[in-house]
Amino acid sequence: MRTPKNLISSTCSALDEVRRQAPLVQCITNSVVVNFTANALLSLGAAAAMVDIPDEAGPFARIASGLLVNLGTPTAEQRAAMLEAVAAANEAETPWVLDPVAIGFLPVRTPLAKALRDLRPTIVRGNASEIIALAGAGSGGRGVDSSDGVNAALPAATSLAYSTGAIVAVSGSVDLITDGRDIVRIHTGHALLTKVTGGGCALGAVMAAFAAVDNDRLASTVAAVTVYTVAAEIAAEHAAGPGSFAVAFVDALASITPDDITRRAVIR
Amino acid sequence: MRTPKNLISSTCSALDEVRRQAPLVQCITNSVVVNFTANALLSLGAAAAMVDIPDEAGPFARIASGLLVNLGTPTAEQRAAMLEAVAAANEAETPWVLDPVAIGFLPVRTPLAKALRDLRPTIVRGNASEIIALAGAGSGGRGVDSSDGVNAALPAATSLAYSTGAIVAVSGSVDLITDGRDIVRIHTGHALLTKVTGGGCALGAVMAAFAAVDNDRLASTVAAVTVYTVAAEIAAEHAAGPGSFAVAFVDALASITPDDITRRAVIR
Amino acid sequence: MRTPKNLISSTCSALDEVRRQAPLVQCITNSVVVNFTANALLSLGAAAAMVDIPDEAGPFARIASGLLVNLGTPTAEQRAAMLEAVAAANEAETPWVLDPVAIGFLPVRTPLAKALRDLRPTIVRGNASEIIALAGAGSGGRGVDSSDGVNAALPAATSLAYSTGAIVAVSGSVDLITDGRDIVRIHTGHALLTKVTGGGCALGAVMAAFAAVDNDRLASTVAAVTVYTVAAEIAAEHAAGPGSFAVAFVDALASITPDDITRRAVIR
Repeated sequence: MRTPKNLISSTCSALDEVRRQAPLVQCITNSVVVNFTANALLSLGAAAAMVDIPDEAGPFARIASGLLVNLGTPTAEQRAAMLEAVAAANEAETPWVLDPVAIGFLPVRTPLAKALRDLRPTIVRGNASEIIALAGAGSGGRGVDSSDGVNAALPAATSLAYSTGAIVAVSGSVDLITDGRDIVRIHTGHALLTKVTGGGCALGAVMAAFAAVDNDRLASTVAAVTVYTVAAEIAAEHAAGPGSFAVAFVDALASITPDDITRRAVIR
Repeated sequence: MRTPKNLISSTCSALDEVRRQAPLVQCITNSVVVNFTANALLSLGAAAAMVDIPDEAGPFARIASGLLVNLGTPTAEQRAAMLEAVAAANEAETPWVLDPVAIGFLPVRTPLAKALRDLRPTIVRGNASEIIALAGAGSGGRGVDSSDGVNAALPAATSLAYSTGAIVAVSGSVDLITDGRDIVRIHTGHALLTKVTGGGCALGAVMAAFAAVDNDRLASTVAAVTVYTVAAEIAAEHAAGPGSFAVAFVDALASITPDDITRRAVIR
Repeated sequence: MRTPKNLISSTCSALDEVRRQAPLVQCITNSVVVNFTANALLSLGAAAAMVDIPDEAGPFARIASGLLVNLGTPTAEQRAAMLEAVAAANEAETPWVLDPVAIGFLPVRTPLAKALRDLRPTIVRGNASEIIALAGAGSGGRGVDSSDGVNAALPAATSLAYSTGAIVAVSGSVDLITDGRDIVRIHTGHALLTKVTGGGCALGAVMAAFAAVDNDRLASTVAAVTVYTVAAEIAAEHAAGPGSFAVAFVDALASITPDDITRRAVIR
C-alpha cells in the first residue's frame, strides 16, 4: 500500500539506486537551465548528456537510461530532436519526462506540447498553469510563472494522468503527484527554489533519473520530488540569498542521505 | 530638476516598484549569459522569460513588460525573433533595450545592430567601443572588450541618443548615461564585475525591468545602473574572487535596500 | 630537455604570460558549459569571445589569439561555423584545440570530428574513450563518460599525435599529454572536477589560451593542464560539494600563483 511511510522508504531506496546505477539522462532542454540541470544530475550521482540535435537525439534515446523533453527555448532543431528522441524512447522503453514550459498562448510550443502529450510520456511535470493548459483547459500562465495554485490544477492533473497514462507532477509550494487515481502531496521544499532559474526544469531531469531505477512510476516520481525538495530545505540553511542557495543546493544533492529524507520529508 | 539627490531618490522608488510589480522581462540574449541574466532578474524581484524563437517572440513581446535584445551569439532564429519582437514591442509600446555586443567588424551582427538602432530602441547599452561603432564612427572593440574609454564615447553616445531618441548607457569603470542632452555619470561599481561573463549583458535586462516601472527613461536607466553597481560593491565585500563574487552579486540583488543605495551611490 | 622541473618552470612563465597578454580565445562550444568556460578564461586573465555563427566565425578566427572547437551540442550553424573558423585559423596560424565530445557512435559529430582531425588541430583534448574513437579504434564512451582508462588510450593518443602533428591530451585521474614522442603525465587534480559539468570542456579553452602565448605546444599544453589541475586542488580545500567547488575553482584560477604551482604540481 502507498502509505506516506512506504513512500519515504521507497524514496530512500531509490536515492541509493540512483547513486549505485548512475543512470544516464538525456536532456533536450532550454538554454537557460542546461548548465544547472547537468550539474544537478552529476551532483546527485546520475550522468547527463545533452544530445539534442536531429539524427543524434534518436539513436541516443535508445541507449539512455531516461530522457527529459523540456520546451523552454525550443529551437527548430530541438523540436525535431524531441520528436525523434521520443519515438526512439517509446520503442526502446526508455522512460521520458515532458516539461511543457510556458505553454498556453505561445503558438509554437503549445501544439508541440500537445503532440508530445499524445505520444504518452512516462511523466509530465509542470506548474499549475502549464498542467491546466496541457490538459486542454485554461489559457496558461504568464510565461514561466504559474498564475494558478497547485490545488486548482488537481482536476486537470488527474484527467491528464488518466487520459495519457502518465504520472503528472504539479510543482508549487506543495507538490502534487498523481497517476490519475492516487494523489500524493509533498510538503517539503523552500521558496528560494522559485528564485533560481531552472529550479523546476532540473527537477524534470531528476525525475527521469529516478524513473530509470524504479519501475513504480508514481513512487519514483515521489522519490525525485522528495529528494529534490529536502535538498532545497538543507540548502536554504546555508544560503544568504538566491545565488548562494543555488550553490548550496547543488552541494546538498551530493550530500543528501536517506537519513535526511527520513527526518525531513513530509508526504501526505 | 535632475539633481544627483533626485536621481538617488527616484532610484530608491524604482527599486521598490520593480519588487512590487515584478515586471516580466523577455530576453533574446546570448547563450553565454542567459542563465546569469535570468537569475539576476529573479533575484531583483522581476520575472524573466527567454522567448527567443520566431513566431513566439512577437506575440510574447506584446504581453511582456520589457524586452532585451542582445546580439552576443545571434543565431539565425534569434535574428528573426529579434526583428519580430521589436516590431511587436514598438506596436505595443513595450520598452526595449538594445545591447550591440561586439559589433564593429563582425559582418552579421553589425548591420543587424544598425537596423535595430533605426527601429528606435528605448535604451541602448554597450561599452565604449560598441557605442562608438553603433553611432557610425570607430571600428569597434576586440570582441567583447572595450578598447575605448567611456569618455571617448561621449560624443558618439550623445549623437546616438539625439538621432534615435534612445537613452544611451555606456558601461565602464564609470558609467555614463545620456538622453542626448543631460549627461549622468555613476561612479559606483567594482572591477570584479568585469571578470564575470554577462556582467554587462545582465545589466541590459535589468534596464528593461526598470524601464517597465518608470516612464522617465533617463531616470529609470540611472536607477538600473545604480542598483546594479551598488549591488556589485556589496558583493565585492563578500567575494574571494570572480566565482564567489558572481554568487554574492546575485544574493546582493535580492537583499539590496533603498538605504544601501542612499549610503553608497555616487551620481554626478 | 623536458624534465619535470623544466616543465614546471615553463608552466609558471606561461601563467604569467597569459595574464600579461590576455589572449583572446574564440570558443565554439556547447550550450551546457559555455558560461563556465567564459568565466574560467576571464578568471585566469584571458579574454573570451563565443563567436560561433557562420560568416562571423571565420573572420573572428583570423584575429583571435586561439580557438576552441568543442563538439558537445553541435547545431547546424555551429558545425558550419567550426569548419569556417578552422580554415581561417589555419590560414592565419591561430592555434586551435579540438575537443571531440562524446564521439563514437553518434552519427553527426563522429564524422565531423574526423574531418576536423584531418584539418590538423594544434591540440586535441578528450577523455580516453574519445581519443580512442578519434584515432579510429574503439567505439567511444557512454556519452560524455569515459569508459576507458587513460593508460588504455596511450597507443591511440601516440598514434593520433604522430599522424596529425597535434599535441594530444587525455583527461582522467592522471592526465596524459603527448606529441607522439614524449609522454608527460600530470598527477595533480581532484575528483570533484569530474562532478562539475564543463570541467573538461573549459580545460580545452584554457589550452587555447596557453597555446597563444607559448609556441612550444607540448609545454604550453602541460602548462594549461597543470594550472588547471592545481587550481582544482586549491578549490577542493574550500568546497563542501560540487556546487561550492565550481565557485571556488573559478576563484582559484584568478588567485593561483607560480608558487602554488611549484609547491603542488606533480609532473612525471
